[in-house]
Amino acid sequence: MQIELVAIGDELLRGTTINTNGAFLSRHLSENGYRISRHTTLSDDPVVLKEGLQEVLKRSTIVITTGGLGPTCDDRTREILARLFSSEFHFNESVAADLKKRFGEQLISLEDQATIPAKAKPILNRIGTAPGLIFTEDQKTWIILPGVPQEMQEMFLNDALPYLQKIHPSCVQKKLDQLHFSLLYESLVDPTLRILQEQYPQVDVGIYPGYGSLMVSMLSSQEEQLEQFRTGLQKKFGPYLFESPNGKIEEAVHSWFIKNKKTLALAESCTGGLMAAHLTALSGASDYFLGSFVTYSNAMKTQVLGVPESTLRQTGAVSKETVAAMLEGVFKQSGADFGIAISGIAGPTGGSDQKPVGTMWAAIGERGKVPDIGTFIAKGNRQTRILSTTNNLFGALYRKVAKGIPAFPFFS
Amino acid sequence: MQIELVAIGDELLRGTTINTNGAFLSRHLSENGYRISRHTTLSDDPVVLKEGLQEVLKRSTIVITTGGLGPTCDDRTREILARLFSSEFHFNESVAADLKKRFGEQLISLEDQATIPAKAKPILNRIGTAPGLIFTEDQKTWIILPGVPQEMQEMFLNDALPYLQKIHPSCVQKKLDQLHFSLLYESLVDPTLRILQEQYPQVDVGIYPGYGSLMVSMLSSQEEQLEQFRTGLQKKFGPYLFESPNGKIEEAVHSWFIKNKKTLALAESCTGGLMAAHLTALSGASDYFLGSFVTYSNAMKTQVLGVPESTLRQTGAVSKETVAAMLEGVFKQSGADFGIAISGIAGPTGGSDQKPVGTMWAAIGERGKVPDIGTFIAKGNRQTRILSTTNNLFGALYRKVAKGIPAFPFFS
Repeated sequence: MQIELVAIGDELLRGTTINTNGAFLSRHLSENGYRISRHTTLSDDPVVLKEGLQEVLKRSTIVITTGGLGPTCDDRTREILARLFSSEFHFNESVAADLKKRFGEQLISLEDQATIPAKAKPILNRIGTAPGLIFTEDQKTWIILPGVPQEMQEMFLNDALPYLQKIHPSCVQKKLDQLHFSLLYESLVDPTLRILQEQYPQVDVGIYPGYGSLMVSMLSSQEEQLEQFRTGLQKKFGPYLFESPNGKIEEAVHSWFIKNKKTLALAESCTGGLMAAHLTALSGASDYFLGSFVTYSNAMKTQVLGVPESTLRQTGAVSKETVAAMLEGVFKQSGADFGIAISGIAGPTGGSDQKPVGTMWAAIGERGKVPDIGTFIAKGNRQTRILSTTNNLFGALYRKVAKGIPAFPFFS
Repeated sequence: MQIELVAIGDELLRGTTINTNGAFLSRHLSENGYRISRHTTLSDDPVVLKEGLQEVLKRSTIVITTGGLGPTCDDRTREILARLFSSEFHFNESVAADLKKRFGEQLISLEDQATIPAKAKPILNRIGTAPGLIFTEDQKTWIILPGVPQEMQEMFLNDALPYLQKIHPSCVQKKLDQLHFSLLYESLVDPTLRILQEQYPQVDVGIYPGYGSLMVSMLSSQEEQLEQFRTGLQKKFGPYLFESPNGKIEEAVHSWFIKNKKTLALAESCTGGLMAAHLTALSGASDYFLGSFVTYSNAMKTQVLGVPESTLRQTGAVSKETVAAMLEGVFKQSGADFGIAISGIAGPTGGSDQKPVGTMWAAIGERGKVPDIGTFIAKGNRQTRILSTTNNLFGALYRKVAKGIPAFPFFS
């Protein structure tokens, strides 16, 4: 059973866009026991696209395409597939009704987007306008998805994957298990994984590092080995473990605060609002998240959070004293139960011999109690320093509130 | 002349790694006038890989492969290519000398890495150990590069690309042009693109929508047509145009504020810090960005920004009056030259008949002047509503400061 992923679009062949859809689909299919045979990227050009898709039809059993479904002139996928599967077009009432409900009667592209090949089963798009399509013929299944990642991901996980699992149950009857760790990195986990792999050779292991977090996936047909492998990891790295539906540490923080009915507020300098943005991306954040003081300038630190000018002058904005004063300001201004204050040098400029680029100072505490204050060095470039600092601080907060582990140092 | 890029490695087919090499090579080849026909990703499995490469050999004239050149057991590319081009292996003295110079005599993989197909010309790797290879046969050119992006990029730019330009000067002398628009969406641009395409059929057009922004790319060998196409678009959609190195509207805002030595501060409710995070992701933001008041709770809006409790009670947090008061608070607390205040319903819950999910109110203004205040509906899901609101507001701010266009309504 050959499975092929086809990405369609000249933007990929011109390098304007990186094909992240291929990796997303591959990862989720692999986790569900499907093995991908190849990825192919084809042009929008109708002649080239048709030739390419004919080749794919000969070669592969399950095909998932992404891209080329929009209403504009460069979107040719529907038309070519209709010819490939000898299908007429028809106006699909359920697609039209859905588009009217979400975008109103006046949607310009409504007629175009609701006109689909009659032989295809539509997949409704809950975000954008282009519906997905499913063609089935001679044991072959083609799933046609839009190229916009958010739309594609939602349709794949909720509709396409369950459909595929019903029609073509994964031949590999392996069980997948995953553990999420925060504040850990690859080289700290690797020696333990090697030992466990020698003990339990029937387990396939994958390590997927994030910035400040890490996912270990374990795949095996031997449930007992899988269980023992998992237990071995849990024993060794228990303090770093967290549970979350999508492997994001902010989800663990979010759930804890909602469940425990506590409130949280932040003071962010170098993370520049990213910590607040990660929390507020999750629905329900208003239950516990009061807000963030993104005090990027020194004047704002003084004016809004009451950090004394003398402190900034004497110890600098990136110091123990400054983050302590920022956290005090957070509690005073917001009345939150818990707070984090962070100030650091995201780079690429602004470093010194005493405080190189990447130096971070942070305070994490509960109102009315002595806070945990610590320093660390964030690695990488500006973006990854900001991201790993965001994840590390959520990890440290989570350990403190959920497990009673002091926030600093991270590795202990 | 078919050009094909082949990525080799199971990590790509399992989704553990995103194929960024394809985009890198495509971008540089496109910029140099080469047109890529397709991308293919193949497994390390020797049987599958051999079959796949035989297909590629039949189909394409210029082939660039990445991956599978290392010294470990899963690296099969060299061996299979040697068979494909009927070549013996030999110990290459220049490769060996280079490896010794950089890694010393004791390099374990020295013998392995210096043993290459005799018919291939080596490309020295200045970073890692695996040399690249060039095969030429019957007008065909295969360039074999390692998969590690840093090594591959260096070898491609310094050796492979110049070699290609000598042997196969770009036959398609096409020029690529790109225009970035904010506050526009696909269906607004499409009718104009269709008209322009009829007038200038020699121009290949691509539309790449973001959330609240849009990129149009134009490719043509006819410079005059390209110029006229571009001018046609600029005339029609001039008010929406912006310039930025990576097509991000916040880059245009960032550059304008730095160049004009003005300062900016924000009050964010439903965007939850994302606007601040987008600005501070850019190096140099501290030159103009003072900070953001992420006042997620009503109490914070009152306590920090001075929004009267009576306003919140009478008109609600998502209202003209609230964002006007928030913006006043921003100016009072930060002293910034310009400010934005945003409050809305990101969803999925919290909507009402009067204010459905997606309703946004925003104020954009200059200190001491009457602000522009407007409302709009953000579409999609929670994440895309937050993202498109962020981009739309940056677009509206940019138009106001750089072009003197009132911030609201967006489409006029």
